[in-house]
Amino acid sequence: MSLEKIENLMAGIVAECGDEIVELYKKVPGGKRLRAKLVLKIAGESEQSIKLASIIELIHAASLLHDDVIDDALTRRGVESINATFGNKTAIMLGDILYSKAYEKLVGFNSTISSEVANAVALLSQGELLDVELSKQINLDKDKYFDMIYKKTAVLIEATAKCSANLANKDEQKYANYGKNLGLAFQVIDDVLDVIQNEKTLGKPALNDFKEGKTTLIYIDLINSLADDDRQKVMSFFKKELDDSQRMWLLQKVFQSGALKKSIDLAKSLGKEALEAVEGEENQVALQKVVRDMIEREF
Amino acid sequence: MSLEKIENLMAGIVAECGDEIVELYKKVPGGKRLRAKLVLKIAGESEQSIKLASIIELIHAASLLHDDVIDDALTRRGVESINATFGNKTAIMLGDILYSKAYEKLVGFNSTISSEVANAVALLSQGELLDVELSKQINLDKDKYFDMIYKKTAVLIEATAKCSANLANKDEQKYANYGKNLGLAFQVIDDVLDVIQNEKTLGKPALNDFKEGKTTLIYIDLINSLADDDRQKVMSFFKKELDDSQRMWLLQKVFQSGALKKSIDLAKSLGKEALEAVEGEENQVALQKVVRDMIEREF
Repeated sequence: MSLEKIENLMAGIVAECGDEIVELYKKVPGGKRLRAKLVLKIAGESEQSIKLASIIELIHAASLLHDDVIDDALTRRGVESINATFGNKTAIMLGDILYSKAYEKLVGFNSTISSEVANAVALLSQGELLDVELSKQINLDKDKYFDMIYKKTAVLIEATAKCSANLANKDEQKYANYGKNLGLAFQVIDDVLDVIQNEKTLGKPALNDFKEGKTTLIYIDLINSLADDDRQKVMSFFKKELDDSQRMWLLQKVFQSGALKKSIDLAKSLGKEALEAVEGEENQVALQKVVRDMIEREF
Repeated sequence: MSLEKIENLMAGIVAECGDEIVELYKKVPGGKRLRAKLVLKIAGESEQSIKLASIIELIHAASLLHDDVIDDALTRRGVESINATFGNKTAIMLGDILYSKAYEKLVGFNSTISSEVANAVALLSQGELLDVELSKQINLDKDKYFDMIYKKTAVLIEATAKCSANLANKDEQKYANYGKNLGLAFQVIDDVLDVIQNEKTLGKPALNDFKEGKTTLIYIDLINSLADDDRQKVMSFFKKELDDSQRMWLLQKVFQSGALKKSIDLAKSLGKEALEAVEGEENQVALQKVVRDMIEREF
């Protein structure tokens, strides 16, 4: 199976760094490999597509390792994060190793692919910084939110789709648009899940984002829609640990205000835009399935 | 002047990431740009050599940013480190940004150069992990020490020399050997300086390495040369803050045992090997000067 080949190649690349790295890498939760699946859906299975998918998943894993250090995240995908188990330093070093091995393997791809991926990683790391900057205080600027999630999440998915199209001699720009909208939708849904999912499903406490200083779209819409008293109350929750009655009140407001629905609708419309970008392309069912899986996950 | 062009190009690359990154980058101490000078000495000045030198110096700067987080270093080159001033998270993110921008600019060089540099960074990040691993307990295995300093320090200098030779159509292997031996000599001297330099010149407390768990070559030789009592005493200093009389005693032993001289002699002999590797190549005076500057710095 193709995904297994990707897992094996990733493990093989990591194995070049010696046993100790292999042991550490085994502790990194694999996740759903959405980016790898996207490569396969667009480019089909070939030596090149397996390699590209492995590189992109290694980059994604590296970025999450550093993200978790930066966010002081104790869990990742429901299990203890590498920084929580082995400390920040190990997580930084393992991230550096995965990044650098991914780059090493990127050499040899044509210049479109290597530029796209390298450029995506540069924006990705800037997106992480933007995220931290925006988290210092409540951010009600939607442009800043979208710029940040574009860089932090959508850019790598956009590059994945574009590079896969390049490998398969398909229209790069169409697939880039598909990937970009897919990536934005994915992050908006991720932000929605933080509000509506419980700890067990999400692998982290629900309502975590606002506590961590992240004014996601839902909170921007919520705060903008409330009358002054409620608005002040929501804003007073920023970066605070909430008790049960505060959580219930907040959830109620999120539902009642329509802020939640607005984010879900936006994600759906981004998903639609993604599909419109590749209208008429072959393999529609697969491309639709990716969008559906991303948007409807866990609902 | 060529070095100024390199500084300008580095600043220009960083400027693509926006004002905030520019402000942070200004706080990163520039250092002696030894790797950039090496590029210029071997490849002369050209658009390509300026670009290669900038990329390598950005990579070096990124690796130091992450190193300082990993080592909890509060100073770098005599000034406060980025992690000390702005926190670990900022240092991690800035390092990621500099790495990724360097890779972005590496695309477009021929595959020899891009492979060499990418491979060097992969080994460099593994070298940092080895360094941390070796620092957990006293290490008396010289092979492990040399493997670690090769990866952590010499690999990037080796790649710098080799890629510069490639740019200038010179013999890559000769310059790779030159760079490798130069890099090893450089690190051995760095370890010597930790023992014989005072805080002001070095920009960090002398005798810092052993306190940080780093059994550098001097300590390996010292411990191996001492009789049981003294040996136990030195080993009891591992990871300890020493008082003045302990420091004096340790310094005396380092001098008396010949361990210090052994490291200096080794650095000199590595420097000689470096020069033998490029014997007969043009520009001997410049190549010798680099070796001399690296080995005799601060003596």
